[in-house]
Amino acid sequence: MTPTGKSIHINPRVLEAQYAVRGLIPMRADEIKNELTTPEGKGKYPFSSLVYCNIGNPQALDQKPLTFFRQVMALVDAPFLLENEKVVSQFPEDAVARAKEYLGHIGNRTGAYTDSAGYAFARDIVARHINERDRNVKPLEDASSIVLTDGASTGVRLLLQVLVGGASDGVMIPIPQYPLYTAQISLLGGTPAMYYLEESERWALNVAELNSVYDDCVKKHNATPRVLVVINPGNPTGGVLERGVMEEVAKFCCDRGVVLMADEVYQENIYAEERRFVSFREVVLGLPAPYNTDTMLVSLHSTSKGIIGECGRRGGYFSMTNLPSLLREQVMKMCSINLCSNVNGQLMTALMCSPPRSGDASYESYWSEYNSIFSSLKKRALMLAKELNTIRGFECQPVEGAMYAFAQIRLPEKYMRRNDELNAQEGRKLSADARWALELLESTGIVIVPGSGFGQRPNTMHFRTTILPPEQQMERMVQSLRSFQEGIWEKYV
Amino acid sequence: MTPTGKSIHINPRVLEAQYAVRGLIPMRADEIKNELTTPEGKGKYPFSSLVYCNIGNPQALDQKPLTFFRQVMALVDAPFLLENEKVVSQFPEDAVARAKEYLGHIGNRTGAYTDSAGYAFARDIVARHINERDRNVKPLEDASSIVLTDGASTGVRLLLQVLVGGASDGVMIPIPQYPLYTAQISLLGGTPAMYYLEESERWALNVAELNSVYDDCVKKHNATPRVLVVINPGNPTGGVLERGVMEEVAKFCCDRGVVLMADEVYQENIYAEERRFVSFREVVLGLPAPYNTDTMLVSLHSTSKGIIGECGRRGGYFSMTNLPSLLREQVMKMCSINLCSNVNGQLMTALMCSPPRSGDASYESYWSEYNSIFSSLKKRALMLAKELNTIRGFECQPVEGAMYAFAQIRLPEKYMRRNDELNAQEGRKLSADARWALELLESTGIVIVPGSGFGQRPNTMHFRTTILPPEQQMERMVQSLRSFQEGIWEKYV
Repeated sequence: MTPTGKSIHINPRVLEAQYAVRGLIPMRADEIKNELTTPEGKGKYPFSSLVYCNIGNPQALDQKPLTFFRQVMALVDAPFLLENEKVVSQFPEDAVARAKEYLGHIGNRTGAYTDSAGYAFARDIVARHINERDRNVKPLEDASSIVLTDGASTGVRLLLQVLVGGASDGVMIPIPQYPLYTAQISLLGGTPAMYYLEESERWALNVAELNSVYDDCVKKHNATPRVLVVINPGNPTGGVLERGVMEEVAKFCCDRGVVLMADEVYQENIYAEERRFVSFREVVLGLPAPYNTDTMLVSLHSTSKGIIGECGRRGGYFSMTNLPSLLREQVMKMCSINLCSNVNGQLMTALMCSPPRSGDASYESYWSEYNSIFSSLKKRALMLAKELNTIRGFECQPVEGAMYAFAQIRLPEKYMRRNDELNAQEGRKLSADARWALELLESTGIVIVPGSGFGQRPNTMHFRTTILPPEQQMERMVQSLRSFQEGIWEKYV
Repeated sequence: MTPTGKSIHINPRVLEAQYAVRGLIPMRADEIKNELTTPEGKGKYPFSSLVYCNIGNPQALDQKPLTFFRQVMALVDAPFLLENEKVVSQFPEDAVARAKEYLGHIGNRTGAYTDSAGYAFARDIVARHINERDRNVKPLEDASSIVLTDGASTGVRLLLQVLVGGASDGVMIPIPQYPLYTAQISLLGGTPAMYYLEESERWALNVAELNSVYDDCVKKHNATPRVLVVINPGNPTGGVLERGVMEEVAKFCCDRGVVLMADEVYQENIYAEERRFVSFREVVLGLPAPYNTDTMLVSLHSTSKGIIGECGRRGGYFSMTNLPSLLREQVMKMCSINLCSNVNGQLMTALMCSPPRSGDASYESYWSEYNSIFSSLKKRALMLAKELNTIRGFECQPVEGAMYAFAQIRLPEKYMRRNDELNAQEGRKLSADARWALELLESTGIVIVPGSGFGQRPNTMHFRTTILPPEQQMERMVQSLRSFQEGIWEKYV
């Protein structure tokens, strides 16, 4: 109701949309965090601080930014510093040269709107990076298929908006998925068509399943799938796809005329020795005709993840492969309505795609910082999965990549019945894993996201935690999870 | 068609959306700009460079950024500089102090995602600024009604998305309007309900018209207006509303249960001596009960305009007044799906709302830069309207505020008929003002936007130009417009 007593109208699609990564549990966490700052709140919980493991936000958990990138950013933000020899002398030569190079391209105008798709020079850098990354395929001739975005999320939103007009349009998404996808599908009124990943096979993608999900979507839901979303490395699963599977996925998309949306924001986050990142672009262009020319692909990347971890910059890009020109035109028109992505994010994207090279003044320090972050992430990824598997009722696949463990939880029957009873008393419909996550939070200060926020097979429960807490906090987290979960098994059996 | 010959499906709402500010004319301008860099292109046009007057992008037209803001931004981007005495000594004390203050609030984490609505400290600064700006009304107690955004555009998009679910939801917009509004209405499938501004009265808003447009929307289009958009100072019109009119507008919204969306991004851009900016918040809260508590208001602001002109930062905010809690919750959920706005934009917004104060080291230099930009804008605003009124067939209202002149054009009958003939030959449906703008571009290099991109009364034609070209370029622009337009009157009469 409005203040005047009139009923307030809200877009029903908005009412429907959910985003668990910042949903019930993190919101309760923020309440507790505020309580902890008050005199009454201090003694109320058996902990004095929270460990936020709900969101992949590395620098919030003390990961240091890469120095070279910040040096360039500072000089580009304040070009007059380049005229001050006392300041310039405190920066490495290559940072100064890089700042001058960027400013030269943009005529000192970091305060101006850029082209709708981003600065041409920054898109060129991205295109060169893609050409170096992808092996044995036709290089991009120019940057016309690259669009710079405010993080990958705005790219996902824009592309889905162009492709999905309503309930007759399906979007195939993995389960579990990153909840941005279901949220955007709700907002667009599209039809989600969910395909399950195979948990027992390190969350592998089952191509046979794609065909049956496609057919079901058409027959049972009267919706034609327009997009297939693949997240590789997987969020929340941590799985990394094999090339053979990727080829089958691409062929499926080509045969069905579905756009393949490859969320590749974790492309630098691969920890398993036997895995390496292969982009869908490399896979598609490496297929025989007609697949190499007819598979429609959009690939997304971001400055928020990887080793750079610059979430706050909201930098990122998507690249378009084999899209028909009408579709590209509409994508570009949508970019123009949004004016442009933010300049600092654009610059950070360019930097991510062109780190210092051998011989540059910052080469060694850059790679030393980079490798130290990478090896620590790798250590935590391996350690976390291993430790979780020693806790009663937990089962966790190896964290091959990305920034998360997605562990299965089993809970005593009695705990499940208690949840039903509590829900009846409280008049709400908390899933058992959400109740579990809430009680974990309130008794330990650990903030994770229940599996129901990502989707999971019926009658299974999971939780997602990031691998990002520094090693000491990680120990507290594992210990808290252990005593909480084992306490439940003691109490409710 | 897709490469495989399958028909490609595109969201029909996307196909429908138009955005003239970066539409046909600016796209043709970019083509010409590229041609001019080639040997063949050089002699092809009677000019060697373009003057972009299509978009309010001050720094692209050589407006200097405000130094203090950039100093703080550089230090916050590279916090390690604060530990280097040689660097610190080159910055004014207050820039160093400000950077330390901001970094203290955010724990050095400018690379992290922020709270969904933006950093609490930055929102507090915005709230204090609003409390200083708005006179004789109840102050904001905290920043819970402030949301930081990537420019005002993302705020408009988010708010309209929450309020407009489909064709049964109307959005009342002024004609002429900023085409972001019609684009977003198309994308949401809402029903536009257009009210005309009174050109001959300096583009005044006619409140009687609001009621009849509301009723028509309900009766003729089966849609209930949910939002009334008011742009003040006006884009593209340059008009500034009087307080009495604003009070009537607020009462209308309250009586009808419509959310008042106040686009106040030009609040610092008022040039007419007899006008000053009054915010809709001040007006609403200053009304007697029940209007002061029951008028639902959202107000938008941006770092892109004003004197700061930091378009590329994509900074901005909206504030919510008297919104019911369900609506606020849904707004906040939508923010969380978008993660957060970019940190540099958030910091720029905080800076815009808290410039150096009397006694600060940068106080005098800041205000000297500020006043010099302001007085040059004012000079150009007055000069441009005056000059345009000396050209045959042009009529331009005073540019009281904002960054644009929106002039009416009259063209000879013969020119109009020629457009019909050319359209028939070319198989397209260019409006006469679009044809005129295209020919202006191709013969003079001046890039403006035809009135049809903003909406105008039937049988009238206009064009919008920014007042932003530096004074010398402005002379070229006026001269080009004059000889082009007078040439048409000579040739086609």
